[in-house]
Amino acid sequence: MTIEHHLHPPIAPPRRTLMGPGPSDVAASVLAALGAPTVGHLDPYFLKVMDEVQDMLRTIFHTTNELTLAVSGTGSAGMEACVVNLLEPGDKIVVCTNGVFGARMADVAGRIGAEVVQIHRPFGEVFSVEEVIDVLQKEKPKVLGIVHAETSTGAAQSLKEISEAVHEADALLLVDCVTSLGGMPVKIDEWDIDAAYSGTQKCLSCPPGLSPVTFSSRAVAAMDARKTKVSSWYLDMSMVRSYWGDSRAYHHTAPINMNFGLHQALRLVLEEGMENRYSRHYANHCALKTGLNAIGIEFAVAEDHQLPMLNAVNIPDGVDDAAIRGQLLKRFGIEIGGGLGPLKGKTWRIGLMGESSQSTHVLLFLAALEQCLLHAGYQLSPGAGVAAANDFYRTTITD
Amino acid sequence: MTIEHHLHPPIAPPRRTLMGPGPSDVAASVLAALGAPTVGHLDPYFLKVMDEVQDMLRTIFHTTNELTLAVSGTGSAGMEACVVNLLEPGDKIVVCTNGVFGARMADVAGRIGAEVVQIHRPFGEVFSVEEVIDVLQKEKPKVLGIVHAETSTGAAQSLKEISEAVHEADALLLVDCVTSLGGMPVKIDEWDIDAAYSGTQKCLSCPPGLSPVTFSSRAVAAMDARKTKVSSWYLDMSMVRSYWGDSRAYHHTAPINMNFGLHQALRLVLEEGMENRYSRHYANHCALKTGLNAIGIEFAVAEDHQLPMLNAVNIPDGVDDAAIRGQLLKRFGIEIGGGLGPLKGKTWRIGLMGESSQSTHVLLFLAALEQCLLHAGYQLSPGAGVAAANDFYRTTITD
Repeated sequence: MTIEHHLHPPIAPPRRTLMGPGPSDVAASVLAALGAPTVGHLDPYFLKVMDEVQDMLRTIFHTTNELTLAVSGTGSAGMEACVVNLLEPGDKIVVCTNGVFGARMADVAGRIGAEVVQIHRPFGEVFSVEEVIDVLQKEKPKVLGIVHAETSTGAAQSLKEISEAVHEADALLLVDCVTSLGGMPVKIDEWDIDAAYSGTQKCLSCPPGLSPVTFSSRAVAAMDARKTKVSSWYLDMSMVRSYWGDSRAYHHTAPINMNFGLHQALRLVLEEGMENRYSRHYANHCALKTGLNAIGIEFAVAEDHQLPMLNAVNIPDGVDDAAIRGQLLKRFGIEIGGGLGPLKGKTWRIGLMGESSQSTHVLLFLAALEQCLLHAGYQLSPGAGVAAANDFYRTTITD
Repeated sequence: MTIEHHLHPPIAPPRRTLMGPGPSDVAASVLAALGAPTVGHLDPYFLKVMDEVQDMLRTIFHTTNELTLAVSGTGSAGMEACVVNLLEPGDKIVVCTNGVFGARMADVAGRIGAEVVQIHRPFGEVFSVEEVIDVLQKEKPKVLGIVHAETSTGAAQSLKEISEAVHEADALLLVDCVTSLGGMPVKIDEWDIDAAYSGTQKCLSCPPGLSPVTFSSRAVAAMDARKTKVSSWYLDMSMVRSYWGDSRAYHHTAPINMNFGLHQALRLVLEEGMENRYSRHYANHCALKTGLNAIGIEFAVAEDHQLPMLNAVNIPDGVDDAAIRGQLLKRFGIEIGGGLGPLKGKTWRIGLMGESSQSTHVLLFLAALEQCLLHAGYQLSPGAGVAAANDFYRTTITD
């Protein structure tokens, strides 16, 4: 018997300009590497690729941590890998929650029987070192978890002083760098971060599917001192690191082609240079902000902690969130993000991440947004946004 | 400061013929789909791709199960997704262990506080329905887990009668179909399997990175009746299914390009037709066996439960396992697998999976193996293996 099945048409994605909270645009050379012929997961060639991925990740994390690799899942798998390896049932974690991803970290920890204490700031705000010192003294946790770049709100958390407070209290510092890595400094060693996870589809501009993680020797010692097995077999770093390390012991089959893609994405980051890349992200953020302000659109986050790669802005009164985002997608192929949680319908999240952090993206977006807003009856001075951004670029960029 | 980094060379994999236990060769059209431009994980186009992946997976699993999708990790993540969603702490699972992957399932379940009872058969053997009935009566588990196609041993487990016994005992049947799906019948509905997981890099011939899973309504009811949260946030099907289902609620960012690749791989399966595909796998297995027997190499598994896609054979006495596999890889680019666990150094595992199940692969492999064996001083009748396989094809294949 032959199975009857109406075949679906082959993959042919529409043309998109990705300016949401991730994924970001992917370079053609990364897509080509992703589509390179598959080899075995223990092939000498693939083992070399794994070594090189680790080496490049260390540079991008600004660390010498031996245990630095790409977890075989998306950013949330990296979060879970860090949480479940650092914590045993009954261990205490303090999570600093000021957005969706802090809350997620608390949820992940609670599921494995950790004692979870959360401190909260409203969405869009960040934590002071005093607040962190207070909770450390009161709770004496094993781990303090905090988000460097809150993708749900656009807020940037400074970490250096908090790290000192955490280590003063003899705790481990776990940091979510999903959105920051590759777009702003993430100085693992200088800031003395014990564990951090990221995603590939933000400022690294590789498709989603892997999660770069890094662990300090202090974190490794804590994991080595565990009395119980890690709750997740798939994410158990004691086995994962044998596969990525010298013993090459088979654990699971790594996503081979995803690692090919990540390898090329990391090459592009290093080819540009870290500082150049941070400057580019910051410049395009400033240009976008100048343009948006010129048409009366304000940022949702205070000036001193705005993320360069994720611009959260207030949707103007009377403007229909879904209608404008729908038009941007339909007429221009531009994707931006809506608000998450309590910010749903109130903010737009405009990503300028990795390959998507370009003056061309900023100018096109301002022009497209103007058209959509005018169409919706919003009052603005036609051309003012693009003119302001152009003026910013003209006066700050020297060829 | 500009970061100094010696750039690694770009991705350029060597030419390989993948005849190990997976990954298998990937069709050019699948690699092309994998490298298609990335779109957002909530893009209407990607949501349509997800629907189509689910639809095609149902056909390939021979099921109408609503909850059928691709977990965002490799096969072991699918195993963990099934185990941790079906079981709560204190729930009892019986695992039938006759290889590495049964043992892994037991490990996964033990980590979340399930009560794990294992019954064992030596590597390479399979379970009788009587053994299963005995353990069910004695243990009265919530779930019985068993491996359909043991990748570590090459043994095929028949399931229909075992399924009847499991349901007679009011338990749920969980089946590992990582290696079988797409290469031999996996009849979820007809055999009344409650939960099953697979991998993409075996007989579906997509690179590793996703794990197709399917759950019966009985399994879904058991998950809905849970009193505790699933131990893994990333793999919690109550949230994952909202993203894949009608509500499209954001959970994690799916590996978008991996799903593009899987979509095309599933299209190729359906284009060929399931029965044609099963026949092809069986025919190439028979041809390989005929050829190997002609040069004195015997299968490690009894005739009545040999897998068509994974041929485990005894390494002849005095032949150096690693040397021969090394030569196959170096001289011919052919990858085959060594033995796992107690079979290390004793068996080779020769995969004929998906795109790798071809007469060209069988003939090339026999020729290459002959050269390597003769080089190593092994006595054989030169040309006998290829001649026997050719004879098999000539007399059984009609154009």
